[in-house]
Amino acid sequence: MDSSSTEQTVKQKLRRVIFGTDTKAGRYFDISLIICIILSVLLVFIDTVDSVHKEYGGVIRIVEWVFTGIFTLEYLLRLYCSAQPVQYARSFYGIVDLLSILPSYLALIFPGANFTLVIRILRLFRIFRVLKLLRYLSEGNILLRAMMQSSRKVFLFFFSVSLIVMVLSAFMYVVEGPENGFTSIPKSIYWTIVTITTVGYGDITPQTALGQGIAALTMLIGYSIIAIPTGILTAEISQEIVRKKDLRRCSNCLKTGHEINALYCDKCGSELESDL
Amino acid sequence: MDSSSTEQTVKQKLRRVIFGTDTKAGRYFDISLIICIILSVLLVFIDTVDSVHKEYGGVIRIVEWVFTGIFTLEYLLRLYCSAQPVQYARSFYGIVDLLSILPSYLALIFPGANFTLVIRILRLFRIFRVLKLLRYLSEGNILLRAMMQSSRKVFLFFFSVSLIVMVLSAFMYVVEGPENGFTSIPKSIYWTIVTITTVGYGDITPQTALGQGIAALTMLIGYSIIAIPTGILTAEISQEIVRKKDLRRCSNCLKTGHEINALYCDKCGSELESDL
Amino acid sequence: MDSSSTEQTVKQKLRRVIFGTDTKAGRYFDISLIICIILSVLLVFIDTVDSVHKEYGGVIRIVEWVFTGIFTLEYLLRLYCSAQPVQYARSFYGIVDLLSILPSYLALIFPGANFTLVIRILRLFRIFRVLKLLRYLSEGNILLRAMMQSSRKVFLFFFSVSLIVMVLSAFMYVVEGPENGFTSIPKSIYWTIVTITTVGYGDITPQTALGQGIAALTMLIGYSIIAIPTGILTAEISQEIVRKKDLRRCSNCLKTGHEINALYCDKCGSELESDL
Amino acid sequence: MDSSSTEQTVKQKLRRVIFGTDTKAGRYFDISLIICIILSVLLVFIDTVDSVHKEYGGVIRIVEWVFTGIFTLEYLLRLYCSAQPVQYARSFYGIVDLLSILPSYLALIFPGANFTLVIRILRLFRIFRVLKLLRYLSEGNILLRAMMQSSRKVFLFFFSVSLIVMVLSAFMYVVEGPENGFTSIPKSIYWTIVTITTVGYGDITPQTALGQGIAALTMLIGYSIIAIPTGILTAEISQEIVRKKDLRRCSNCLKTGHEINALYCDKCGSELESDL
Repeated sequence: MDSSSTEQTVKQKLRRVIFGTDTKAGRYFDISLIICIILSVLLVFIDTVDSVHKEYGGVIRIVEWVFTGIFTLEYLLRLYCSAQPVQYARSFYGIVDLLSILPSYLALIFPGANFTLVIRILRLFRIFRVLKLLRYLSEGNILLRAMMQSSRKVFLFFFSVSLIVMVLSAFMYVVEGPENGFTSIPKSIYWTIVTITTVGYGDITPQTALGQGIAALTMLIGYSIIAIPTGILTAEISQEIVRKKDLRRCSNCLKTGHEINALYCDKCGSELESDL
Repeated sequence: MDSSSTEQTVKQKLRRVIFGTDTKAGRYFDISLIICIILSVLLVFIDTVDSVHKEYGGVIRIVEWVFTGIFTLEYLLRLYCSAQPVQYARSFYGIVDLLSILPSYLALIFPGANFTLVIRILRLFRIFRVLKLLRYLSEGNILLRAMMQSSRKVFLFFFSVSLIVMVLSAFMYVVEGPENGFTSIPKSIYWTIVTITTVGYGDITPQTALGQGIAALTMLIGYSIIAIPTGILTAEISQEIVRKKDLRRCSNCLKTGHEINALYCDKCGSELESDL
Repeated sequence: MDSSSTEQTVKQKLRRVIFGTDTKAGRYFDISLIICIILSVLLVFIDTVDSVHKEYGGVIRIVEWVFTGIFTLEYLLRLYCSAQPVQYARSFYGIVDLLSILPSYLALIFPGANFTLVIRILRLFRIFRVLKLLRYLSEGNILLRAMMQSSRKVFLFFFSVSLIVMVLSAFMYVVEGPENGFTSIPKSIYWTIVTITTVGYGDITPQTALGQGIAALTMLIGYSIIAIPTGILTAEISQEIVRKKDLRRCSNCLKTGHEINALYCDKCGSELESDL
Repeated sequence: MDSSSTEQTVKQKLRRVIFGTDTKAGRYFDISLIICIILSVLLVFIDTVDSVHKEYGGVIRIVEWVFTGIFTLEYLLRLYCSAQPVQYARSFYGIVDLLSILPSYLALIFPGANFTLVIRILRLFRIFRVLKLLRYLSEGNILLRAMMQSSRKVFLFFFSVSLIVMVLSAFMYVVEGPENGFTSIPKSIYWTIVTITTVGYGDITPQTALGQGIAALTMLIGYSIIAIPTGILTAEISQEIVRKKDLRRCSNCLKTGHEINALYCDKCGSELESDL
């Protein structure tokens, strides 16, 4: 092999490690990347604490540059070993990758800029790319299918809840009025959501007897309707687990209904296919 | 055909579009109506924000008149193409339709009247008429049947909870008394509902040790009994899904138990009826 | 028949109406009694509101005497038509019945006594006697059996939660200390219950960073473990519904598995027994 | 038998009672130990209340010494009857046992030391050893298996929630800023957890319109995703109960599917094995 084809092979191997998830090295690469991303974001988070910033600001800056270095290296490697570098650079993930290293460089030119913080947190979204390896986990599949199966019912549910929230908010605004903190209907909607989700900050509370009555009604509605999405999703997940079991068919004797974790057919003993 | 019978046909077509939901045009009409209603109500909501009212009050006024025009036109069309216009005008929905356009005209004569706001929000109830198309969705059917099946159990549950709330409220009133914010038993009931639904505003909190003990008990009751309606509803929804599957019978080979989304019989391959 | 035996028959009929629930009149008697009890208690509740007491205090007093009259009459009737009047008077329900009319008479001698309020609320417990008719509802049976089936699991759950609450409370007391509102461990336990049940009054909140960390942990524990009793109860209710269906056996063709609401056997068409 | 072998037998019997859970005496020993541990810890808890400490401080001190005496005796007995005393003393539970009696003695030398409180609460952890008898309860088994079966799904769930929390916290920090209480991102994370778990203290609340919008979104997310772990766990518990029933096989006629509480086979009447 000449040097060009060797380089080609190296490139292909690298690509499989960096972009793929089917090799052991590829998975280790992905996991260390996830850890790096989380650590670098946590660092940004901790740095916003005043006392930490004053004492360890210098150290954090250095560690951040190390992470920026790692991500820059990773970005260059991806550009290098990608089959179509330009296409990668223009792709959604290519732009996210670039955005996640740019802020550190921008912070050099415009120090103390607050908006770089938001972009720096965009790094977190990069996890979703790495998370594509979750697609291969059957657990994720069951959850996703159950959620998709029930999405229409859940949409219907949230549509009804929105209507109730709007009507209740308008009533509370008229009943309580600006003098009791319900300064506008959008603010009243905020209060209704705080109440119907049973969060209950207490920054705005009804003062009139009628208002407290409507508030009690709102709470009871929130408390009882939480049963509905739970019921829908639970029923779907149960269905999915049963369906999954039915799908596990032994290729030798065609018996179905094996446990999700079963490795061998419990009728004829031949090995089951590991995943469906 | 003479002009009268042509008009008749136009009327019938219009009626099918405006009142019906079985044609494509009818469904588009309904969906655009829903969007108009929601938008017009949101506009009323946003207009209650002081700063928005000051800056965009004029624009909002104009857009509101556009919506009022649309709804007026819709009302006239309904009157025109209805088979029995008088009956329609006197029907529940006819009155709601009228009420939803009147406030805008009333606001001309009595400017700044607060009560028109409430009537204007009545527009939201018009959605329920349009929502009759939901009746045709099987998802809604499963939910509704499950809720009806479990309504007696849920009523029993809420009756028991009411008793518990009343007893706890009376106790708290006696233990804490007016000096700690429990000025009357109705207010104490308000507090108990705030606590048992785990909303917890914190506008009224127990101050005595015994009161805090009863409060802790109230919270634990609220926290654990939420499991009961969830359990009831979930079990019913599961039953409904299974029943639905049993009802999907192939008209060719009579096999039952098809998936809700299945289009063809999985035994003989003939098409299944789309809805039950 | 002589007058004594006629009186005997009247007594027996009265007893069946007052103590029994199997006749139509008996059920109407029970339901009107429940309504009277709830109304009389609500009256006591509303009377604790200052403004209501000032304005309608006189009317309420009269209505209360009417209710007291009704309950006194009912008590005397029970004594009269009971087979063993002394035994009834000494029984648990006999004492509750007496206690529910005594306070009104005591209030004559000791006006404004607060403790009579608590006894007056004891009337509510009388509902439970009337509620024995619920025993005949199959809905109540399913719920009760499911709860009894899962009581050991739920006890285990609450025992574990208690341990967690105790450990977390002690930690918070040491970490936050009296200066941040955690004046003692019992108060710390109160805070932990407020937090773990997701009520969150906000009357005591952690101020230190470590305390806020433990608080966040407490919330996450409370938020996730609520799934456990729900899961247990739901699974049991599902089992109960299936079992119930299996128990509905046609006495003609012995087919089981009929719907809970089914009136006729779906195989041979003969009537099913109405309740099990 | 010479005295040495008699002692050996006494030792073995003691060991079976103290370390084992299969004899009646062993179970009584365990249960009285649990009660002693809980009582002694509750005593420490109540003693932190100022008024109680002032009035009953002396009595509590004496009772505590009684408990310390009991635990010291138990520790010495364990050392005495253990097969390998040194190994026991060095084992995890041996150290916990020692730690739970040391603080009382340390408090003699260093009075009023706060840190002894924490160690004294370590006694609670001793319950976990006694709790090993729970292993034999089938209820615990079902719960544990269901939780283990769903642990991967639940981990996936909490990982996703963490990502959402981090992104929302960063947004809120940028939107609201230090002037509205969001002094740093870790504090913002604390707020997000308070909100997403629907606890809602109200010590930090959004003030800007945009912040209140994001807060409302956070609440709705928290309110709806609680359905997911409930759904997962419920489905698994249902599966476990069904599996358990399938495992109950009659050793005489081999029929499976008996109720968990069934004592006799419902087909051939022979006794079923009591536990699996």
